[in-house]
Amino acid sequence: MENTAPESNTITILPRGFRWGAVHCGIKSNPQREDLTLVVCPGGAVAAGVYTTNLVFAAPVALDRQRTPSADVRVVVVNSGNANACTGERGLRDAETMARLAAEACGANENQALVMSTGIIGEFLPLEKIAAGVTATARQLGETPDHFLAAARGIMTTDKFHKVAARSAVIGGREIRVAGMCKGAGMIGPRMATMLSVIATDAPLDVATAQQLLRDVAEQSFNCISVEGHMSTNDTVLLLASGQAGGAALAGAELEAFAQLLTESAIELAKLIPNDGEGATHLVTIDIEGCRSREAARQIAKTIAESALVKTAICGADPNWGRIVSAAGYAGVPFDPTGLELTVNGFLLYQAGAPVAFDAAAVSGSIQNQRDTFVQLRFREGSARCRFWTSDLTHEYIRINADYHT
Amino acid sequence: MENTAPESNTITILPRGFRWGAVHCGIKSNPQREDLTLVVCPGGAVAAGVYTTNLVFAAPVALDRQRTPSADVRVVVVNSGNANACTGERGLRDAETMARLAAEACGANENQALVMSTGIIGEFLPLEKIAAGVTATARQLGETPDHFLAAARGIMTTDKFHKVAARSAVIGGREIRVAGMCKGAGMIGPRMATMLSVIATDAPLDVATAQQLLRDVAEQSFNCISVEGHMSTNDTVLLLASGQAGGAALAGAELEAFAQLLTESAIELAKLIPNDGEGATHLVTIDIEGCRSREAARQIAKTIAESALVKTAICGADPNWGRIVSAAGYAGVPFDPTGLELTVNGFLLYQAGAPVAFDAAAVSGSIQNQRDTFVQLRFREGSARCRFWTSDLTHEYIRINADYHT
Repeated sequence: MENTAPESNTITILPRGFRWGAVHCGIKSNPQREDLTLVVCPGGAVAAGVYTTNLVFAAPVALDRQRTPSADVRVVVVNSGNANACTGERGLRDAETMARLAAEACGANENQALVMSTGIIGEFLPLEKIAAGVTATARQLGETPDHFLAAARGIMTTDKFHKVAARSAVIGGREIRVAGMCKGAGMIGPRMATMLSVIATDAPLDVATAQQLLRDVAEQSFNCISVEGHMSTNDTVLLLASGQAGGAALAGAELEAFAQLLTESAIELAKLIPNDGEGATHLVTIDIEGCRSREAARQIAKTIAESALVKTAICGADPNWGRIVSAAGYAGVPFDPTGLELTVNGFLLYQAGAPVAFDAAAVSGSIQNQRDTFVQLRFREGSARCRFWTSDLTHEYIRINADYHT
Repeated sequence: MENTAPESNTITILPRGFRWGAVHCGIKSNPQREDLTLVVCPGGAVAAGVYTTNLVFAAPVALDRQRTPSADVRVVVVNSGNANACTGERGLRDAETMARLAAEACGANENQALVMSTGIIGEFLPLEKIAAGVTATARQLGETPDHFLAAARGIMTTDKFHKVAARSAVIGGREIRVAGMCKGAGMIGPRMATMLSVIATDAPLDVATAQQLLRDVAEQSFNCISVEGHMSTNDTVLLLASGQAGGAALAGAELEAFAQLLTESAIELAKLIPNDGEGATHLVTIDIEGCRSREAARQIAKTIAESALVKTAICGADPNWGRIVSAAGYAGVPFDPTGLELTVNGFLLYQAGAPVAFDAAAVSGSIQNQRDTFVQLRFREGSARCRFWTSDLTHEYIRINADYHT
């Protein structure tokens, strides 16, 4: 099943206090594709960020790390087509220049601007094109869903569809809105594609709360996805909170309600990435249950998600439980193998550490006939769990990443 | 370049004190393929073993773990075509029965026999076929290279060629010989292929020395290879030392000389596995230098070796240094990125943490035109190093593992 955007991948409601826009400024070769996005918060936003833990990290990551968390961010400028990664001191100066250009175009101070870049690695930013693009985008900012979708398209690289999510809830008597965009499909060709996301809300949040909240939310969403497990140099998730829903900064039960809203939005965004994974024919949801800690459950889920043998089995609609069970066995997490139970698409394949009789044709058909595959592995070690999402491994992935030359 | 056996993959010299043999007993469907091997040491051998660390381990691994190290092993019986893994209590009883049958056929005591199995997972051993095969093999044991090569073929599953190595050296005035066999090409289809190896020597070794030596040797050989990084349930390396080269148990400088001989043999065997990796068109040697510890160097090498993006780049003859450098960055080992230097096939691609100008067509050609690819990554953290071997990731790997059904 080909990569196509889920039906929900549209937007009708947007948080108050933000303006959006994007243009094509010439970084991407196709003039139909936006490659420069601005997210502007004229009244200022509390901003939090989480970033790649790769030791080889890009210049915009270095810059944003210094500037978040922040009580007053006014603009996020994003370019696609060039990652500004492995570009040394000059790359860092270029990221600062890009931030300054965006700040000036939007009437903000330099340190109120954040930067994200994604695309080819090891090349310097085309700053003249970016300067022209920033100016052009700043002239056509708006608050409509069309403006938001243009901004979401402007951060795409090898993505086959744009990735957005929006939700709202009434919390403490006022409606609070969340809208986010993200991009990512793997790392491809000469480019180093990247996971980037901006999540905007009109919720009132204080700085420390925003940062802690984003960390917690990312842990359950963007840190629980994988395409091939190769961590990028540019991964960035930003949370911008304009506060324009009104009222005092969220706390207590209101904060918990908002955390749930934000988590749901982030998970919806995060799942879109393996759903658009390079060459993917399946979106695989891995539920690990009954572990001693969430970290243990996540480690097992990640090991299964990144096994080439598990991924090719799902591509081939092969209910090969041995690959799943043995991947769990080398995850580095202690467990009693005789307590193991495995279900695929609701079919029980393995119980009490031994295979059970099952209708292989029926299980194979259930994998083949739908884009979603559900793997559920239960341990008898404790009560912690983790849900993780990945894509399968196909001929098309090899074509994209091996047959294409630098 | 297709998988073909290296020219050195023959044997002219064998250690004294061993007899070898194999037959087809009906586990594999092809009657031309041996599927039951015996390695017999009538005078007894010191035996050491290292095994998979997968928590989901097969019955023969459980049995051999109990019986090694040992001062007196007389027979190793190996079947291919069935892994006797995930078979519960009955599987363990079957492994014990198989050991007893082999011991009886060779005039040994039950606890002087070791067992290895490789092949399909989750099915019970066909014990009647194995009993007949053990009897038939025991009748035709011999000491010639032909007998040894038959034994090496008898442990193959999806291997495209048998894998053997032999060496000798004069140590302390007497000639000491080492000959080993191994198998492995990945994990395929419904089967769970496995890395198995038996290394025989006529060196005199005491039990504790043999076990420690095998651990050290495996650390530099079989623990430094990877095809797709999926650890099997059956991995086993056995060292059998007949002592028939004569003299007292090796110690001091003689032991060191023997350790080198054994290490060279084990590395030669281990490299044959990624060289025959499923779908492999390249054998990739990864040299990591300048780390704080060997374990740090190995962790970086393994992370690079198991990146699908690095493996597809080599398949595509793409000198994509960004994939290699960024894989090092997420290996979980701290280092200064500005100290990094990368060479591929002798071409310098990256230095002092930044790309250097290079002739991309020449590098690509050097990858394309030979089966060996050499990746050398230097850090400025210390003096520890590690050499690691892997295969590339190709369409053929996907065909073997996705297009084939259980």
